Amino acid sequence: MDTWTSHNLDEAMTRIADDITCDAPGARISGTQQYRDFLGRFMVELTGVETAAVFGDDTTAVLFYYPHTANVSDAPTAECFTVIGGKITRSVLVFDRPSFAPPQR
Amino acid sequence: MDTWTSHNLDEAMTRIADDITCDAPGARISGTQQYRDFLGRFMVELTGVETAAVFGDDTTAVLFYYPHTANVSDAPTAECFTVIGGKITRSVLVFDRPSFAPPQR
Repeated sequence: MDTWTSHNLDEAMTRIADDITCDAPGARISGTQQYRDFLGRFMVELTGVETAAVFGDDTTAVLFYYPHTANVSDAPTAECFTVIGGKITRSVLVFDRPSFAPPQR
Repeated sequence: MDTWTSHNLDEAMTRIADDITCDAPGARISGTQQYRDFLGRFMVELTGVETAAVFGDDTTAVLFYYPHTANVSDAPTAECFTVIGGKITRSVLVFDRPSFAPPQR
């Protein structure tokens, strides 16, 4: 989480397996290049992160957090990681797309 | 979770504190009557639940699951409960509303 908010994409990617798959709302991401692009787009929107809950065991980690962006800070996001050999091989990401939509003008 | 899929709303509500608050996508629910109405509407849509991850400690429980409805079974939902004195006092519910929208005809 510190890695994300420090906007250090290279450091974040060291924890990601080559065959990463990520299910995100409306998107299925496969492989490190797609994941890096996805994570990079997320990071540049991020002004901070408020962590609500973190749990895990040897193979699974679950995060609950509030990403802070320029417009939104009260919409929760949850992520369930599968970890094999110390690397994240699968991520299931849940957030409500409408809650993060740009404000209507 | 078994309680939900058995559609036993009375049983489910025994675990809910009188002053429950629930933040759901696009909705803030307060008190047992509102929560009961909300949970009831969810239950009637539910044909099953596939649990992906469950973690918790004395005060917090985090669930990751795939609610199965008539139209959708591959959209994840996450929930973070705060538990005080054995009852759920707060729930933060995350799902992507568009992923559960009825199919376009």
